[in-house]
Amino acid sequence: MQIQINKIGVVGGTHGNERTGVEIIRHWTELVKTLPRFTGTTIPLLANPEAVTQNRRYIQKDLNRCFTSELLHNPIPDCLEMTRALEINQILGPKGSSQAADLILDIHNSTANMAVTLIISNPDPFIRAVCAHLSTFDFIRIYIMPDPQSQSPYLPSISKRDICIEAGPQTHGSLKAQLFSQVQHCISEIFQFTEKWNQGYRPEPKELSVYKHFKNLDFPRDSHNDILAMIHPSLEGQDYKPLEPDQPLFMDFKGNAITYSGPQKVWPVFINEQAYYEKGIALSLTVKESVIW
Amino acid sequence: MQIQINKIGVVGGTHGNERTGVEIIRHWTELVKTLPRFTGTTIPLLANPEAVTQNRRYIQKDLNRCFTSELLHNPIPDCLEMTRALEINQILGPKGSSQAADLILDIHNSTANMAVTLIISNPDPFIRAVCAHLSTFDFIRIYIMPDPQSQSPYLPSISKRDICIEAGPQTHGSLKAQLFSQVQHCISEIFQFTEKWNQGYRPEPKELSVYKHFKNLDFPRDSHNDILAMIHPSLEGQDYKPLEPDQPLFMDFKGNAITYSGPQKVWPVFINEQAYYEKGIALSLTVKESVIW
Repeated sequence: MQIQINKIGVVGGTHGNERTGVEIIRHWTELVKTLPRFTGTTIPLLANPEAVTQNRRYIQKDLNRCFTSELLHNPIPDCLEMTRALEINQILGPKGSSQAADLILDIHNSTANMAVTLIISNPDPFIRAVCAHLSTFDFIRIYIMPDPQSQSPYLPSISKRDICIEAGPQTHGSLKAQLFSQVQHCISEIFQFTEKWNQGYRPEPKELSVYKHFKNLDFPRDSHNDILAMIHPSLEGQDYKPLEPDQPLFMDFKGNAITYSGPQKVWPVFINEQAYYEKGIALSLTVKESVIW
Repeated sequence: MQIQINKIGVVGGTHGNERTGVEIIRHWTELVKTLPRFTGTTIPLLANPEAVTQNRRYIQKDLNRCFTSELLHNPIPDCLEMTRALEINQILGPKGSSQAADLILDIHNSTANMAVTLIISNPDPFIRAVCAHLSTFDFIRIYIMPDPQSQSPYLPSISKRDICIEAGPQTHGSLKAQLFSQVQHCISEIFQFTEKWNQGYRPEPKELSVYKHFKNLDFPRDSHNDILAMIHPSLEGQDYKPLEPDQPLFMDFKGNAITYSGPQKVWPVFINEQAYYEKGIALSLTVKESVIW
């Protein structure tokens, strides 16, 4: 089957305090003039305007956990984010239908040193080719987190394929100009590549490095769920750098190191992400692989 | 008059999501065992426990704006923070009285690259001497922000003298182990110095650099109060580095630089502090001076 990308949704503010995407959508009318020509349809969307106004991740429920097929068919009543999820599903979905957007770019921020990470749930031929193209930029990383579409709670799972753009480090509720420019550049390259793809361009497969999700690690915690240690200073900001067994992972409040006890070398990401303290994630571990895409 | 420091208040969680101080107070019983002997009284205090629980800066009103003499005498009714301010004034004040603590160390965090900044409102002989001692550590900065005590809204203004410890960069609601260790080290040095001071030690005055508050600058904004530009990438993280007239200050959303138009060289601090977006401060400007303290 020939993949054609005729309808692209560009989404910001899925989390209201992740400001790069919010400002990209707010300035879309001006930004679109600087983008390469794209002959398909583009739908810019500010996903959670109320959370944006309050400069919070979400109001009642994390919007980016509202898009499983089950929730879309049996929504939580009286929930602001669930109501908005149903609206968004009409605009960029419906999930699983032939009318759904061919591609969603969902723009997020992380407080971790993620550079501009493309999180990929399902690397189909188009996604592989666009990632291979983007991997030539030194500020881009490719992070594969497989996620069966119908069970996925994430907003972009309502489209046929998606790229979650995760830019950091940036404190939630603030903006960094360099990351803004890099994300803008990334979107521009995706539009340019997509236009060429639609005209039949199929680049030669090439070798690139990707990071495959392995597992999440939480902080050590006490019975009240309070953390007993912090990310070790030698690991802070070292996203995408290798971590070997027995290297320091955490530091407790007396200054003692707690080492990584896994059996194999891993590549941590989302190290010390502020929004994940409440989710019980101190960092995620990935395995670096070489692929031909 | 001979200054003696007999009662020290150590305060964390004045802002509930500034976690370095919160964890220092939570672990005070263990930490105090590692501190040098201090023969006076120490009062550790978690200032805003409800905001700490909710991991927010404050619940109803910024607690660190509740301590003017006027507010303490005519408190805002039905305000959680004001009620707590009156309690704290009893524990570590009363403001302006002879019973007040001789010294408060109030521990804060900033998302800006502040290292461990000691903010000084009133450099009396003791404060000068302890700052001169601490300035020998490469992670310490001295920032002078004069503030008449009775009008000051800040918590530590209820004591006879104070040092606000401002550690960054750290995303609010998260912790960095290195900053935790540095703040702990700073407190340990202050206790050790104070004990010697109380026994009559008076070091020779020495030359050091301090940064005097000059003025605050806001982001360019539109009529809806939305920002029209971000901190310029070349200025991001450059706290305490000189900024010359005509150097880039902001970058607008089209990528254009907006330069600093002031008449003189300045040293910016609190650059891109997340909590100050709502207060209309993009950065503060200081002037670097050499003093003999």
